[in-house]
This record gives sequence, structure tokens and C-alpha cells, in this order.
Amino acid sequence: MTGPAPDTITVNGHRLWQSLMDLAEIGAYDDERTGLRGVNRLALTDADAAGRRQVIAWLEQAGLTVRIDRMGNIYGRREGTDPTAAPVLTGSHIDSVATAGAFDGCLGVLGGIEVVRTLDERGISTRRPIEIGVFTEEEGVRFGTDMLGSAVAAGRLSLEYAHALTDRDGRTLGGELSRTGFHGPADVRLDPPYACVECHIEQGPVLAENDVQVGVVTGVQGISWQEITIHGRAAHAGTTPTHLRADAGLAAARIGVHLRSMVDSGGYGELRATVGHLAVHPDLTNIVPARAEFTVDLRNPDDARMARAEEDLAAFLRTLEDGTPGLTLTTRRMARTAYVPFDERVQKVIARAADDHGLEHISLLSGAGHDAQEIAALCPTAMVFVRGEYDGISHNPREYSTPEACTHGVDVLATTLLRLAAQDPS
Amino acid sequence: MTGPAPDTITVNGHRLWQSLMDLAEIGAYDDERTGLRGVNRLALTDADAAGRRQVIAWLEQAGLTVRIDRMGNIYGRREGTDPTAAPVLTGSHIDSVATAGAFDGCLGVLGGIEVVRTLDERGISTRRPIEIGVFTEEEGVRFGTDMLGSAVAAGRLSLEYAHALTDRDGRTLGGELSRTGFHGPADVRLDPPYACVECHIEQGPVLAENDVQVGVVTGVQGISWQEITIHGRAAHAGTTPTHLRADAGLAAARIGVHLRSMVDSGGYGELRATVGHLAVHPDLTNIVPARAEFTVDLRNPDDARMARAEEDLAAFLRTLEDGTPGLTLTTRRMARTAYVPFDERVQKVIARAADDHGLEHISLLSGAGHDAQEIAALCPTAMVFVRGEYDGISHNPREYSTPEACTHGVDVLATTLLRLAAQDPS
Repeated sequence: MTGPAPDTITVNGHRLWQSLMDLAEIGAYDDERTGLRGVNRLALTDADAAGRRQVIAWLEQAGLTVRIDRMGNIYGRREGTDPTAAPVLTGSHIDSVATAGAFDGCLGVLGGIEVVRTLDERGISTRRPIEIGVFTEEEGVRFGTDMLGSAVAAGRLSLEYAHALTDRDGRTLGGELSRTGFHGPADVRLDPPYACVECHIEQGPVLAENDVQVGVVTGVQGISWQEITIHGRAAHAGTTPTHLRADAGLAAARIGVHLRSMVDSGGYGELRATVGHLAVHPDLTNIVPARAEFTVDLRNPDDARMARAEEDLAAFLRTLEDGTPGLTLTTRRMARTAYVPFDERVQKVIARAADDHGLEHISLLSGAGHDAQEIAALCPTAMVFVRGEYDGISHNPREYSTPEACTHGVDVLATTLLRLAAQDPS
Repeated sequence: MTGPAPDTITVNGHRLWQSLMDLAEIGAYDDERTGLRGVNRLALTDADAAGRRQVIAWLEQAGLTVRIDRMGNIYGRREGTDPTAAPVLTGSHIDSVATAGAFDGCLGVLGGIEVVRTLDERGISTRRPIEIGVFTEEEGVRFGTDMLGSAVAAGRLSLEYAHALTDRDGRTLGGELSRTGFHGPADVRLDPPYACVECHIEQGPVLAENDVQVGVVTGVQGISWQEITIHGRAAHAGTTPTHLRADAGLAAARIGVHLRSMVDSGGYGELRATVGHLAVHPDLTNIVPARAEFTVDLRNPDDARMARAEEDLAAFLRTLEDGTPGLTLTTRRMARTAYVPFDERVQKVIARAADDHGLEHISLLSGAGHDAQEIAALCPTAMVFVRGEYDGISHNPREYSTPEACTHGVDVLATTLLRLAAQDPS
């Protein structure tokens, strides 16, 4: 290998795009609503397992040493010249929601692989090892807790907790790890890397509105997930007087409308609220629902305002309960992450890399959760965001980033990793 | 046989109660919510078929001639002394909702059988035949149209329409009739009976509030069922700004809350509104729902006010659609029945029978739909209501009428049928 490392490095955008399109074929489906081809690779399903095997093949073709830990997290390691130096970590996830596009998570994993392919082509060695992480169940839609693999790797959640989580069919994550062959031997607790950089699509409209293709992420807003169960009383729709009803479905509707009014009030800063899952029982046309179960997803970049939103929602639930005889509400916390600020030094390295590639960029906050926010507990961490089209729509087959935007984002990732991997310990 | 017919006749309440309890064992389940034993006999399931076979056995043991028509409607006929006289029809249904009690429908069928048993014991003959009808899919929760069997028998709906209806698993009613062996040979169009009287639990609180055990039903309020489908746009819960969302689930919630406000406004008379079925897609915690499907069940004893409620709901849907870019709403009519007034002469016969049994009674409107309202298109028709406990809760395992109330109701039915069957043509 030759050295010293160049100041900037550009990747092969065509090869990167081909990898994105190839991976998108695994778990692909025809989406009747959009008429587009979508991706359905829920964590640890057969489709996700097939995607994982493809990624492992690419990691090995790139000469990386692959290890799989007890959470099914996959790591590909490219050694550095200094056997004592901690690695620079990159990567993301390839599990998806049920109605996904080709970019969410995959860009960070395949982008990392493309960086290594480029370093090898150029014969570039780095002082520090570079590791690509592929984390399990980042979406959290199958087992109910997002950023799960990286949270266990970072020590925020226990392996026992994660293995015991079940999907809606009662299958445990531990069992699915064994079934798919991804219950690995490696220790799940990650040794602190020197630094971590994750490249990901923005999944929002900010970069497009500012007409730039890449962004430097300053942190991740807080996320609050809870499941609310309402028990009312089944009753005949035609004969039960309105004043005698305990309608669990109506109570759920009132909560959904109230959440939106909380958002619109502006009293909780940049609060976002979503009821994404909802089911009523017995779910029959002429029976007042006896039970309703639904989820509440709250996001806020301000921990204090998030806490107040949660308190005010809880107060509204109590009011509903007190105001309707026969109605009882229970809430279960599914997930809760505080606002995570990213490392300013790493942000500076990313920003300078973008400058050196002649790319305009802005700094912005992440609206979605990412594995990087878990790794941030272990080492200096930040993220590169890539612009999305169509208001940055994501978790939808319409999710799309141009080949140019993807290439620019991975160019910035490559130069950032190169510089971090060459740095002396500070 | 001996004659003439006595002026009043009382049935064997213990035998009636035993039949109700025996039939309730077929399709019984342990209801976790109430801790009670419930009944689940959705139309043309194996449980319903087993219940039908038991009822046919009882009809035959009572010496009745049994026929089954092409809708699976079952009729048991007791001949009269005049071979040319049209029969007096009674009966109801034994299909149930998924979370039912032991009385809804069954009281009318088993009450009719108990009347015949009593006539036989007393050696009483009648000039007119007495027929007991057991109608298919009265609840309408499996195939989406209620009073289905009686509506086809009365000619309001076609046999082809009914056979083509499908349940949520795509199975057709015609197929289920064949599968369960209840696709009978008899003509489905019913020859006009001389009169029809159905005995049924009130499924409401009015009789209890007035402290009487039986009621004379003056008519059935109008029923409007429609299915509303909302198409919005799936989007990431964390990153999609609120103003860019087309949230199908939130729109459904707004409609549910608006319906209740319409009811509470008092501007639509005695309107009752229920959203009993609701589903969102993709139904995942962190995705704004792209689609919501739900049913709206409206009841009103005033056709003009019902029509205005439907129009105002439609106007609200248009407002919602116009106010939210990316949101489209479609509605499908599932069922629509106008207010049905019952025959005053038959009501008088019922009221006098109650008087002669020394039973206090009131006249009241039915909040639920009943097979009798379909038969009312063919002949003079009315109903006997039996008091229910616990505010008359029904479609719930807590549904309960006392043995005394059931016996009193069937005593009134027996004397009413006896007098109608003895009457000369008018």
C-alpha cells in the first residue's frame, strides 16, 4: 500500500447506485397504492436475512473481516497500520418498515462499503481500522423498540431485554435470531471506537428547501413511543342510548384529535405527534367498541417541551377517564430517547470535507432516530445527511434521492472517514 | 284435538329457559373482558350450523314440517284446520355477533317453539297454520348486510345479491350455505302470511326505566350503514413536518369525533352514531397512516332527520377532503332501511293479550333492526319486546333477561298467535 493519504477522496457513484438498486430487489414488492416498487424487509424476516447475506458477501468481497454479535449486529473491519489504534466506525441498518424505499439505512451501509472499495482501489491505507456496522432492528416496527441493535451494542439496553421482545405473532427476537442464523458469537458490547460517522438520507424536506444536497447533523430530537389501551363497554349500536355508552373507539379518536391540537397550539415547540397503529375490538359495524389499542409517537428537539407534552397528554387521558363512566385507560412505554447532541469536532470534520468537495451544506437537526445516536454514548459521533426528493418523503416507496446526491454524501463520508482514521489520538 | 281455543294461554317457562340455556352452549366462549360465558355464532359458521341443527331437531320433535329455502332460512309449519288459510308467522334468528349473549334472536325462535309445544300439550288446534321462521344472517356482521335472510324472503333484496356477498376472508355467502349444508330447495320468496309477530329482547333500557317487563313495538327506526375509506399519504413520523402530512388516521378520528358532536347537538332528533369497525394501514408505530377504513352506523326514528344527518356527514367529509391536500375519501353504502311503522291492529292484539295476562306494558320504538321489519312488507306485523337487565345491554355477554320476563313475553306471544290464528280473514 502507498501513503500518505490524499486530502480528499471521491467514490464510484455508479457502483454505489448499483449496490443500492441490487439490495432493493431483496424484499421488493409492487405497491398498489403508489404503483411503485417498494421494499419490505422487516427485521429478522426471511427477506431481511437474505439482505444480510448479500451485505456480508459484499463485505467479504471488499476484503473485510466480518463478525456477528449476539444481537445479530454485523461488523466488517478493515485493519489500519497501527494495531493499537481504536477504529473509526461507520454504517447504519438494512432492516426496513413494511412500505419502504431503497435508501433508508441502506445508503449508510453500502456507502461505507463503497468507501472501503475506493480505498482499496487507490491503495490507501489508514492508521486506524475502519469498521462498518450493520445494526439489527433499527426501525423498531417489528419488535417495538427502535435502534435496538445499536442500543444493546452501546449498553443502553440489555441483551436479555432485547432477546425477550416479541412481534405481534408472539415470536421472540432471540428466537428469530436463531431461526435466521444471525445469533452470532461476538460480544455484543462494542469497544469504544475512536469516532463514528453515519451517512443517511434526511427523510425530511430541509435540505431540499435550502437547495443543498448534503447536511451536517447537529443532533437527534427526542423520541417518545407509548402504547395506549382503552377499555370501554361493548354495546348495541342501535339501542344503547348515547349517554350510557363507554365507547373505546371514540375515546381513541378524541386522543388523536387532541394530539394534533397540541401540535397546532405551538405550545410544545417543534412537537410532532403520530398515531400510526390503531385497532378496535370487537371491530364490528353495529357494536360500540369495547377496546381500542393504539400507539402514540412523539418527537421533540427540546427535552423539557417533550416532557411537558407527555404530561399534558397523560392529563388529557385522566380527564377522558374521569369524564366517561366505564372507561379505563392504560399506557405502556415502548421507547424513550432524549435529545442527543452530536460531537462538534466531528461535525467540523464533516463540514470541512463538504467544503473541500465544493459542496454547499447546512447544519440541521435529525427528525428521525438513528443508530448513530446510540453509538454517540461511546465516542465522538455525527452524521452526514443526503437530500431526499418529494419533500424528503420516506417509509414510503416514493422515497428517492438522486444518484448525484447519494454520491456527494458518500464522497463527504469517505473524506471524513479518511481524515478521522488518519488522525492521532487527541 | 279439542276446541274451541281458550282466550289466553300460558307457556312452560322452565322449558323455555332450558332451551335458551341449551342453545347458548353452542358457540359458547369464555369472555376474558367480562369473565362471563358468551356466545359467538356468526352466520353460517360451524357454530351457527350446529345451532341450526339443534333448532331443526326441536322443530321436528314439536311435530312441525321443516323446510329450508335457498337463503338457508328455516321454517317449521304447524298445520291449521283450514287448508286454504294463510299462516301466522313468528320467529327470529339464531345467528349472533362475535361477543353475544343468549337471548338476542334466540328468544323469538325458541319462544315460537315453546308456543307450539304448549298448543300440542293442550290439544289446541288453530284455524290458520302457525309457522316459525329462523332467518339467516340477521346481524349482518359477517357478510355486511343485516336482516339479510328476511330481506330476500320479503323480496327487498335479490338472492343473487345475497349469495355474492363475501366475508372478510373473501368467502361468499352462497359458498358458506353449501359448505354448511343449508342451501335448501324451498323457494326463497315467502307467500304473504296472514300476520307476523316477532318476540325479541328490547336491547335497550326503556322497559326497565318504565318498570314493565313487556312492550308493544310501534315500529323500527331507520338504519344507515356506510363504509368510509380514506386515502392519505404514508410518511415518516419523525421527519415529516405536520403541514406536509395527509394523515388518513387523523381524518378518521376527526370524523368519529364530529359524528358524536352531531349527536350531542340535538339537531338530528334521536340520532345515534357508531364507528364500530376501524382499520389503518400500514398500521405501524412510526408511519403516518396512508389509509383508513371504517364503518358508520347511524340510527334515527325520523327519516327526514336521518337524511339530513347523512347529508351533513357527507358535507363534513368534503370539507375534510378539500382542507387536506393529498387526502381523498370514498364512501360505500352497506345498508339503508327507512323507518318501518308496525301494524296498529296487530299492536292492539298484542296489547290486549298483555292486559289479559295481567301484565303492565308500554308502547315503544325499536332501536335495532329486526327480521319483522322486512316481513312487514308482506303482511300486518308487530313485535313483543322483553325487558333486559343492565340498561338492556346487548351484543355483549352481559346481555340478560330474567326467566320471568322471558316467560311473560312468550305468554303474550302465545296468546297473540292463538288469537291471530283463530281469526277469520278480515
